Amino acid sequence: MNLQANTFDLTDFQNTLEDSTWVLTEPAFDPAGQNHKETVFTIGNGYLCVRGDFEEGYPGNAPACFIHRIWDDMPVNFTELANIPRWWGVDIWINDVRFRMDRGQVLSYHRRLDLRTGVLSRTLRWRPAPDGPIVELHFERFTSLANPHVAATRVQVQVVEGEAALRLRTGLNAHVDNTGLLHWQLLDQEQTPDKARLQVRTRSTGIDLALTAIVDTQSTVPWSVGTCDADGQPAVERRATLRDGESLTLDKFVGVVSGNESADPVREASAMAQKAATQGYATLRAASDAEWARYWEASDVVVEGDIEAQLALRFNIFQLLIAAPRHTDRASIGAKTLSGLGYRHHVFWDTESFMLPLFTFTQPALARNMLMYRWHNLPGAREKAQTNGYEGAQFPWESAGDGSEVTPIWGTSATDRRQLIRIWTGDIEIHITADIAYGAMQYWRVTGDDTWMRDYGAEIVLAGAKFWASAAQLEDDGKYHFRNVVGPDEYHDRIDDNAFTNALAQWHLATALDLLVWLKQTYPARNAELKANLDLNESRLAHWADVSSRMYLPEDPETGLIEQFTGYFDLIDADVAALRDPARTESMPQLLGIEGCAATQIIKQPDVLMLQYLLVERFSPEQVQINYEYYNPRTDHEYGSSLGPSISAIMACRVGDRAAGYEHFMRAARADLLDVRHNASDGIHGASAGGLWQAAVLGFAGLRIHDNGWEIHPQLPDGWTRLAFKFYYRGKLESVDIRTEG
Amino acid sequence: MNLQANTFDLTDFQNTLEDSTWVLTEPAFDPAGQNHKETVFTIGNGYLCVRGDFEEGYPGNAPACFIHRIWDDMPVNFTELANIPRWWGVDIWINDVRFRMDRGQVLSYHRRLDLRTGVLSRTLRWRPAPDGPIVELHFERFTSLANPHVAATRVQVQVVEGEAALRLRTGLNAHVDNTGLLHWQLLDQEQTPDKARLQVRTRSTGIDLALTAIVDTQSTVPWSVGTCDADGQPAVERRATLRDGESLTLDKFVGVVSGNESADPVREASAMAQKAATQGYATLRAASDAEWARYWEASDVVVEGDIEAQLALRFNIFQLLIAAPRHTDRASIGAKTLSGLGYRHHVFWDTESFMLPLFTFTQPALARNMLMYRWHNLPGAREKAQTNGYEGAQFPWESAGDGSEVTPIWGTSATDRRQLIRIWTGDIEIHITADIAYGAMQYWRVTGDDTWMRDYGAEIVLAGAKFWASAAQLEDDGKYHFRNVVGPDEYHDRIDDNAFTNALAQWHLATALDLLVWLKQTYPARNAELKANLDLNESRLAHWADVSSRMYLPEDPETGLIEQFTGYFDLIDADVAALRDPARTESMPQLLGIEGCAATQIIKQPDVLMLQYLLVERFSPEQVQINYEYYNPRTDHEYGSSLGPSISAIMACRVGDRAAGYEHFMRAARADLLDVRHNASDGIHGASAGGLWQAAVLGFAGLRIHDNGWEIHPQLPDGWTRLAFKFYYRGKLESVDIRTEG
Repeated sequence: MNLQANTFDLTDFQNTLEDSTWVLTEPAFDPAGQNHKETVFTIGNGYLCVRGDFEEGYPGNAPACFIHRIWDDMPVNFTELANIPRWWGVDIWINDVRFRMDRGQVLSYHRRLDLRTGVLSRTLRWRPAPDGPIVELHFERFTSLANPHVAATRVQVQVVEGEAALRLRTGLNAHVDNTGLLHWQLLDQEQTPDKARLQVRTRSTGIDLALTAIVDTQSTVPWSVGTCDADGQPAVERRATLRDGESLTLDKFVGVVSGNESADPVREASAMAQKAATQGYATLRAASDAEWARYWEASDVVVEGDIEAQLALRFNIFQLLIAAPRHTDRASIGAKTLSGLGYRHHVFWDTESFMLPLFTFTQPALARNMLMYRWHNLPGAREKAQTNGYEGAQFPWESAGDGSEVTPIWGTSATDRRQLIRIWTGDIEIHITADIAYGAMQYWRVTGDDTWMRDYGAEIVLAGAKFWASAAQLEDDGKYHFRNVVGPDEYHDRIDDNAFTNALAQWHLATALDLLVWLKQTYPARNAELKANLDLNESRLAHWADVSSRMYLPEDPETGLIEQFTGYFDLIDADVAALRDPARTESMPQLLGIEGCAATQIIKQPDVLMLQYLLVERFSPEQVQINYEYYNPRTDHEYGSSLGPSISAIMACRVGDRAAGYEHFMRAARADLLDVRHNASDGIHGASAGGLWQAAVLGFAGLRIHDNGWEIHPQLPDGWTRLAFKFYYRGKLESVDIRTEG
Repeated sequence: MNLQANTFDLTDFQNTLEDSTWVLTEPAFDPAGQNHKETVFTIGNGYLCVRGDFEEGYPGNAPACFIHRIWDDMPVNFTELANIPRWWGVDIWINDVRFRMDRGQVLSYHRRLDLRTGVLSRTLRWRPAPDGPIVELHFERFTSLANPHVAATRVQVQVVEGEAALRLRTGLNAHVDNTGLLHWQLLDQEQTPDKARLQVRTRSTGIDLALTAIVDTQSTVPWSVGTCDADGQPAVERRATLRDGESLTLDKFVGVVSGNESADPVREASAMAQKAATQGYATLRAASDAEWARYWEASDVVVEGDIEAQLALRFNIFQLLIAAPRHTDRASIGAKTLSGLGYRHHVFWDTESFMLPLFTFTQPALARNMLMYRWHNLPGAREKAQTNGYEGAQFPWESAGDGSEVTPIWGTSATDRRQLIRIWTGDIEIHITADIAYGAMQYWRVTGDDTWMRDYGAEIVLAGAKFWASAAQLEDDGKYHFRNVVGPDEYHDRIDDNAFTNALAQWHLATALDLLVWLKQTYPARNAELKANLDLNESRLAHWADVSSRMYLPEDPETGLIEQFTGYFDLIDADVAALRDPARTESMPQLLGIEGCAATQIIKQPDVLMLQYLLVERFSPEQVQINYEYYNPRTDHEYGSSLGPSISAIMACRVGDRAAGYEHFMRAARADLLDVRHNASDGIHGASAGGLWQAAVLGFAGLRIHDNGWEIHPQLPDGWTRLAFKFYYRGKLESVDIRTEG
């Protein structure tokens, strides 16, 4: 079943029998893969996420912890989430030797992430010097899913052999950065033998953040206490002498509150930490674990007959669950979740088109939060439309705190520093406005949340439709066009009449008109209000209908083959041999140059197939087939967009090519776990993770939603004996359990 | 004598009678002027310079210490000197209240910088709380001029009233940044009760830096010792209880060595610190003071009858002396010296045209270092010429570690972030190649250092001439032109035939040909070698002569008025009233817009007058007069280039306008001391400082050098009763002492 056993394997994540489908296990540490593993071992609770770096540090590590909404200014990319002060660090000295895994001798090692509870733990035996004692160290950390502002760590030191003078220091460290850029100024700190407190403020945006850490020590031997009050590094200390079998355990309870959530974050953070410390480690864990069980009850996908696929599905679902804002509706999930610095936490179409369905189907309250983020940011979208000379709301290609456009405008050429490369996506990758409307409509269709659609969703859809109608250009051929755009396939930019964009715009306008009919029937007052507020007079609506009905779509009337954009078929045909060369390790633009690749039909992701995936009712099976056969071989599946493989998997299922479907599925499954794209150190590929769920549920199970029910069209990969999952349909938790003989 | 008493005054720097012309004194601290004063109170020793921030810190402070040659990468400006770990910080607690001047009550305050010795000191009385004790704190710091790798601080705490529990912590702090950008990674640290050690490495360039601090404590009362080993902050601690009159003194001896100077900086830095500690504070001071006396013996300029001018001259000379590389010939002085982040320590024409003469005349060994920096960087200049399609050596407009061009290429518009502003100076402000040759020729002429000219200077001049000849374009008018350039007046860029550039190029080529004649006569072997290495065949030299003789120069044959560049006289004439409006607080491009100002004849600095200043023998007094009268009123003296006033002062002397000369002179004198340009916080205006010396010596005294002697043409400002200075002429220290009745 392992398609490319020589290239990929899971030896890094060998699992013990009892929890092989729930626990990622690392039996040995390889420094070369350190930053990849930090991403993989990211844990979180929808408020904050922390990368899986070692508590004691390691040369070349990239520790980071991000909290939703703590944006601060930066050059080029405008804004990013500030890496918050390090609350999980622990300094350990054994006989005055500072513990680190590149020092002394590591005698055994074991790291595990339990996806059921989000607990990351590590157990190892270490000897500081050849003649020194042997100690067993156990580290544990988790963020509470029961209280978003609480995290905890546990450190256990036990002497296995000899006598050890133990010194243990832990606290809060404000000396953190985003790859060399400082975001914090230190406001205040405090340290007592049992507590460390830190108050910092972002340098540009002035957001306050308070952290309090309270420690609880347990040991059968006496210990002494101390503090460290170095600027920015308040910490507590413990010293003890341990002999064979003796141990010391230190539990640390951390409260984290920002000015975004509280008028008095210092007081709140201290109260949170104090409450957690009073509850104790076990109670805190139990409350969090219970919440995790509720998460998994709805969101788990069970696969039998394919352990790798099973574990990958759970891992990818886990990574999205921890990143989804649970306690605010003014944040959403960035392209690389909260697990790294890639794309600086900006929110793209990745969110609505790839990640949102998992939430819409299994955690609708979180889907609602993510859609509300867009509604709150309508002013930014309206401003963008206005700046560009359009009406309505044009959502930004990259969105951060306030919904203004934060796509970088210029990049520097890798070969000539005088040459700047204009990044056009922020200006002309306009399809995102329809993608967001699609996400809103899908949420409504699946959940039946009429109240939300009335109060919020309708405004998103209608304001977006207004943008499309104002941007479409009626030309001499009697058709409406969108010229100078970028479609999902970003290997070709500044193109005319991208089929995906035009068809989604057409769908968006038609959908908006339908929505108005529904509103008028169901909520006439709100209908009138929205029509007045958005100036939706009859002539404007007639124009919408006209644009929708006369949208230009480059479709061959005989074969049904869709030209991705005007002139695409005139480009040099793709060199499929080069594209499929197993020795290739770079994307096609890296190999051919940006202009060189743009001159060919090689595409970054299946642009036309994505359109056929979304607007499923618009295309006949034959038309899907012919387009799949044309575009699939011309796609840079390996190093193009990480968004592609899951969609390719679904479309392969649609045309009945289960083997190809599984190959695409596994490519998405391995994006982060096996770092097949060589950039997982920047963070989790959120769209790939969300697409993986879609590929399993909407692809292999073939789940389709109707206005009054749902159906499945299973096409399980060879070897899969079971595929089971749940989802909410109109408020009710539905179960699907598909079993075959594999 | 104080021309604008209402605008400028020196009350900030009131001086006691005995040392009023040597000591900058600050009788009260104003937080609003903190960053300006940090620049003013910069001290250094030609290896490192440290800004005058408070040892204990203050909100909004901008501490920094820079060492020549420790370049590290940064965005946009490519490279800058890394702010080194803070070695001068001291944390003091009195009865558990952390001392800072915005806390408790400051009862008296006094800060002084003794320009004779470069010692910065501060004495103040402080009470931590209304019912607390009163302590007198005395801080002193200096960098040794006798050993560039050694600095020292002294802290004295004396109880004036009551009883004080004193805690004192001092060490080394690696948590420093360049305005939010981190340049260091921590390699190692160590702390004992008497010593702190730190080893760091620049993040991009991999330069190691080691610091060791050794402390010596003196007190009549017992004290306890401790350490702090927080990461990046090794420190020693002292605790004592002091009562009325009792005191504790802590001397700290710091050794600083980088990988640029030593293969084992850790060992060297420790040895330096240890040696200094063994010598003790007084001995270390004495050795440094003696070196300072030698500096001042040659470089002092004495003015009587004008205390402000006297102090300003010494201050500006001081700031250049501390920044000039003494112990390396692979560094030079950046536009803002080593005192701040302005222009990121890049070296411009400011160095050779404005700062170098002070050194050429009074510290020729340092002038030689600075010129050798250019010689070492000839490969960068050759590469720049080649990249641009020219021959020979084209020096970079902005130069850093290796002489490659490091001028930023793009700036962001203040009004529209999508708009980038192309910065053209790095491409086309080509006159710097002639400016450097001029500096080399002046050095040779003044010092008579034939050996240097043979071995190094000739190559600079000849390689530069090769560039000019290859860049000059012969056009249909039978003249050679330089089109699309920027002259010294940067209010007008991308212009044709800048008179300054063309005339300097002409001079450069003619000078190079003369130099070859001298070389052939004096050092025939070297002449042959250079001709072979630089491919200076007869046809090439004939071309040089042709370019030089047929260089286009836009000069009115009747009046002698020079057009600054082609088309300048067609521009809108300057609005002199707006230019001279005393209420103006911005530069003219800020008021009119960059394009708006470029459409006028308003100039940033006296471009044509600078030409007449440098090529003094080329222009008749009448021609100087007519050009002075034309350009002086059209110059943005107030907020244009800080390079302008000193040159305007000299040219005013040439035309006999002593009052104007003094006004220009004082504008330069006050640039940093009184922050008249509102940007002294970014660092010392090095060109203004160097120009001030030129204005006094080459302007008011009218010193002129000939091939066999020198003469003076004194034109002292009203009120000046004496102007005296020394300079080296052909290795001999000459004295000038001009006395008048004022």
